[in-house]
Amino acid sequence: MGARNPVPANATEHATSKATANAPREPAATATASGTVAQQLIASHLVSGRMEPGEEIALRVDQTLTQDATGTLVMQELDALDLDRVRTEVSVQYVDHNILQADERNAEDHAFLRSAARRFGIWYSKPGNGVSHPTHMQHFGVPGKILIGSDSHTCAGGALGMLAVGTGGLEVALAMAGRPLHLTMPRIWGIRLTGELPPWVSAKDVILEMLRRHGVRRGVQRVLEYHGPGLSSLTAMDRHVIANMGAELGATTTVFPSDDAVYGFLGSVGRADDFTELVTGPDATYDLEEEIDLSTLQPLIARPSSPGNVVPVREVAGEPVGQVVIGSSANPGLRDLLMPSAMVKGRQTAPGVSFDINPASREILQDMTQLGATFDLIAAGARMHQSGCLGCIGMGQAPAAGRNSLRTFPRNFPGRSGTEDDAVWLCSPETAAASALTGVITDPRDWAERESAAVPALRLPERVSVNNAMLEAPLPPAEAARVALDRGPNISTLPDFDALPESIEGPVLLKAGDNVSTDEISPAGARALPYRSNVPKLAEFTFTRIDAGYPRRAADAKAVSRGHFVIAGDNYGQGSSREHAAITPRYLGLRVVLAKSYARIHWQNLVNFGVLPLEFDDPTDYERIEVEDQLRLTHLHAALAADAEPTLQLTNITRDEAYVVRHRLSARQRDAVLAGGIIPALAH
Amino acid sequence: MGARNPVPANATEHATSKATANAPREPAATATASGTVAQQLIASHLVSGRMEPGEEIALRVDQTLTQDATGTLVMQELDALDLDRVRTEVSVQYVDHNILQADERNAEDHAFLRSAARRFGIWYSKPGNGVSHPTHMQHFGVPGKILIGSDSHTCAGGALGMLAVGTGGLEVALAMAGRPLHLTMPRIWGIRLTGELPPWVSAKDVILEMLRRHGVRRGVQRVLEYHGPGLSSLTAMDRHVIANMGAELGATTTVFPSDDAVYGFLGSVGRADDFTELVTGPDATYDLEEEIDLSTLQPLIARPSSPGNVVPVREVAGEPVGQVVIGSSANPGLRDLLMPSAMVKGRQTAPGVSFDINPASREILQDMTQLGATFDLIAAGARMHQSGCLGCIGMGQAPAAGRNSLRTFPRNFPGRSGTEDDAVWLCSPETAAASALTGVITDPRDWAERESAAVPALRLPERVSVNNAMLEAPLPPAEAARVALDRGPNISTLPDFDALPESIEGPVLLKAGDNVSTDEISPAGARALPYRSNVPKLAEFTFTRIDAGYPRRAADAKAVSRGHFVIAGDNYGQGSSREHAAITPRYLGLRVVLAKSYARIHWQNLVNFGVLPLEFDDPTDYERIEVEDQLRLTHLHAALAADAEPTLQLTNITRDEAYVVRHRLSARQRDAVLAGGIIPALAH
Repeated sequence: MGARNPVPANATEHATSKATANAPREPAATATASGTVAQQLIASHLVSGRMEPGEEIALRVDQTLTQDATGTLVMQELDALDLDRVRTEVSVQYVDHNILQADERNAEDHAFLRSAARRFGIWYSKPGNGVSHPTHMQHFGVPGKILIGSDSHTCAGGALGMLAVGTGGLEVALAMAGRPLHLTMPRIWGIRLTGELPPWVSAKDVILEMLRRHGVRRGVQRVLEYHGPGLSSLTAMDRHVIANMGAELGATTTVFPSDDAVYGFLGSVGRADDFTELVTGPDATYDLEEEIDLSTLQPLIARPSSPGNVVPVREVAGEPVGQVVIGSSANPGLRDLLMPSAMVKGRQTAPGVSFDINPASREILQDMTQLGATFDLIAAGARMHQSGCLGCIGMGQAPAAGRNSLRTFPRNFPGRSGTEDDAVWLCSPETAAASALTGVITDPRDWAERESAAVPALRLPERVSVNNAMLEAPLPPAEAARVALDRGPNISTLPDFDALPESIEGPVLLKAGDNVSTDEISPAGARALPYRSNVPKLAEFTFTRIDAGYPRRAADAKAVSRGHFVIAGDNYGQGSSREHAAITPRYLGLRVVLAKSYARIHWQNLVNFGVLPLEFDDPTDYERIEVEDQLRLTHLHAALAADAEPTLQLTNITRDEAYVVRHRLSARQRDAVLAGGIIPALAH
Repeated sequence: MGARNPVPANATEHATSKATANAPREPAATATASGTVAQQLIASHLVSGRMEPGEEIALRVDQTLTQDATGTLVMQELDALDLDRVRTEVSVQYVDHNILQADERNAEDHAFLRSAARRFGIWYSKPGNGVSHPTHMQHFGVPGKILIGSDSHTCAGGALGMLAVGTGGLEVALAMAGRPLHLTMPRIWGIRLTGELPPWVSAKDVILEMLRRHGVRRGVQRVLEYHGPGLSSLTAMDRHVIANMGAELGATTTVFPSDDAVYGFLGSVGRADDFTELVTGPDATYDLEEEIDLSTLQPLIARPSSPGNVVPVREVAGEPVGQVVIGSSANPGLRDLLMPSAMVKGRQTAPGVSFDINPASREILQDMTQLGATFDLIAAGARMHQSGCLGCIGMGQAPAAGRNSLRTFPRNFPGRSGTEDDAVWLCSPETAAASALTGVITDPRDWAERESAAVPALRLPERVSVNNAMLEAPLPPAEAARVALDRGPNISTLPDFDALPESIEGPVLLKAGDNVSTDEISPAGARALPYRSNVPKLAEFTFTRIDAGYPRRAADAKAVSRGHFVIAGDNYGQGSSREHAAITPRYLGLRVVLAKSYARIHWQNLVNFGVLPLEFDDPTDYERIEVEDQLRLTHLHAALAADAEPTLQLTNITRDEAYVVRHRLSARQRDAVLAGGIIPALAH
């Protein structure tokens, strides 16, 4: 391996105002590494706050990414914030979610996004170029940097030794405007890897093992930091798989060190100069500790309809399969497409199976085509799809209701595939390919034994394709200033949100259970996603996955009262980062959510858009409140004052009861909620 | 070239009852060829009627094809007809139109179609295998046979010396049930080709030249038969391009002879044994004659929004382009993908252009991938789409409103792309590729001169890929009999249609102009197409492209009167063969259409589903009738009796006027209309 860049001592002084990615990048870690990788990343970007778990901290942001599903709102927010030009080092607008273009609204969104990218000094990645996460990693990922993105899988960037955090779109907009990211200081969860993965077991099985052990909530307010001798056998793209799906544990993010594997990756994409070593300091201690012996892992699979329902593949072997989809941002790497192509080469997938290939980026498709993998897949019966998010976000290849679909995707929340009553399973490319060949869920080890198939020896190129032609660089400032936003008829502006009233009295319009995802609050998919830029229209879909009557009842309630309440269980708002899940219910009159606990990004989005997120002091009170109960909160300004206790009294008028409820708002956040959201708060 | 099969003398006695394509095929032409190719094809299959233009003839049908957009109704019709097993030599159900699978209804349709194929002894071509026309040509096309298909571009099969006719789905269903095809004997339009195409001009420009000369109506009641010395330079796939878009002239079909080019094609797909020579007899005379000197042609393009708006590319050069799409059933051949890939190789398509590649079949994609063309296209910025109809039927890649989209597709009717206010142009692959590179409409000759680019020397393989794995053969009868139709919740049964009443009085609910397409009567596209199997739901889209209020007014009228009228201009119902365009307005209460003239397939579909298609005796009467006028027809049974004159008197109650109107119904067709349609007529 060649010489590496020296680590400068002044890294923590690194400026944040560079406008484009063409500026030479400098490492961010200090020469005398201290603490874990995550702690070093935080320390080098800390603007305010103390690095104590639970404290609010503010971090300087180097890079942002937005995608089309959330980006049209972010661009509207930049417009509402009156921004002239982004102040980050790199900001990139990707178009990956909705690229089927079933009608003109889709092309209209793309034109709007491109015009906004040109206006504000943002890179623009054309539709068809690929999913944000692998594309960003290839072109822009730099160890030691902080990246935030309006996509919950932004955490995949942790594979390169970045602190990469998925947030609501408004946080991204504020970061683009030069403001720091506010975050609750997480606990660092050290996961020590030992051993090496056995044959037919791959990175996906590592993160499925974490989900098997811990389910979808254990990562909340934690950073997962992988370390230990087992790391050396995991490539940067393997780490991408593991970091990406850290989101499914509810983690703030995942970090890996920047080591030889990262250096190799950056060299393979022609950016060895961007390498900085970033490893755990000798004094590092983790807040929590865990160990995985990779050599003990086996092929795993998440059953429908939660990434946390993980079992060994052999436990469910033999279940019939109607569809297999390989690719997506969760398994985007060339290796993860070459492996299944080698397995199916010269064979035919089962007659009853739709075998779909979803390359995550144009460059990976280019490489797999050059290496013959595309040919082998097609010959084996594959339907090749354009590079993008596809069925992962319910934009195409929706499975038949009730028939098993095996996917190498990150999520299988109910209905996210675009199909009501879907049955989506999550697994590795090896398990997916074996099952496509047999037509039933199959452990790849058992398939290999029956077929006497050796583990394919994959030829991974030392240098991969680099093709910038679908990435448009930011315009120079003078030219950018002359660009007008291209706002078609389906592009709304942001609604105006009024301040929180002094008291709220209104009905409970919905009582949800545990683990409600943002897909259930504001669905994506082919019916709703075309309206992602059109809040009034998109609002008509709010909560309809759970309760088709909600939008109608909300409109009725809005006509006669000042707002309404939603009650929820644990981990409310898990999954996708979409802020539509806060904006559309707010638009329909939601003022207060009362839950047992929240997923991080959605909680922040509620605050950002002026919805008060409360928690039960006594979770058993959840049982005492029913739909249509009239609730009341009074003296809100006093209750949310800076020096007040974080508790409020909630009255249930219908049942003549009262409950103690809590908030976790910082002073800054209380101001935002009282003002009706961050945008009106900034305008004050 | 190798030995050819001898032509047996008993070809006209060839049986029609073979159930599968695996039976050895025999040629159909007589040894002593007499007449034109089309006349020989008709003579060898004539069951009844005289071969005089304008007379009704009945023809034995050897093969059928159905696709998913029309096929779900055909399968429901087979069920309504109580069919046990198809009686054709080959019947194939393709899935090519709606394969985006934006929700579960799509997968449900596929499951229904597959179960029906298994039940009735039909080949099933899986989604992703390809568009029906090139796939059928490759696997099943046999010179001398008659093929009918519920797709208006079925005529592409004429490239192989078949009589290939697009019809309504019910005709296909009846043919599958062993009944002959009824057709008005067309006039044979001989088109003599001389010379050879110049560089950068290709087959698409030949058919565009025909459309430039004749517009979209001149082919009505005609068969276009190409002959002459110019043929020798056109491959079978070139002929496919020309035959396919014969539909755009309104022709009954197009035929080419079966000659060396066809022999070469069949050899390249491993079916040389299926070859039969079928050429014009020495005594042949054409009803009409035309000549094209290929050497005089230039690159042509059809402007929005009719295939008949053809101008030289140079006349519109420089117009900005937002999207270029190459592929589809109109230009499906390997050559038509290798040519643009050679042009873009090592270059980049323009930044503002979405460059979309739509391979028409899996096997062609396999070949282009093996030959490196897929790689070159991706590297130049292509978005690769799965094999199928895609944007040609408005299922994906809808362009931005008002921005020019150049496509190698067959049609550009308004809104067919999925975008209201679209601007779709039709051109050759050469013109498309040159324009994608420059970002403006560009004559490929001018591009070549500027780039000093020679005409690419294409390496076309002698043997192309043959991959049957996505074609499921018919089940043996005993096994088929045990298959149950897989009818999901979105699969309706056919509505019951009542007989024509003795008199009809009702309002005119719509007055349409000339050249109304079936896309405007019953739209496809992403919003409507998922309901193709659900007549009541699909009916809500009827005529909404022209008049959003029609379904509502029709429901109101149905509640108070016995039926309503639609008035139309010339060439009513052009374009797609979909019988939904007859069924859904009939479901909403339409009983009579009064037009200046009709497109052939739609006229037949109206008859098939019991809508009375009338024509003005005096076309200027069209001007005298307005929307909301109350019209009346009386004594219908007497007026449509076998010995009655083909004229009726129509009273306009509102204006106190009467008009003479005509029908062109045969005795068989009168019975059908009186009974309420063919299915109730057969049940009598």
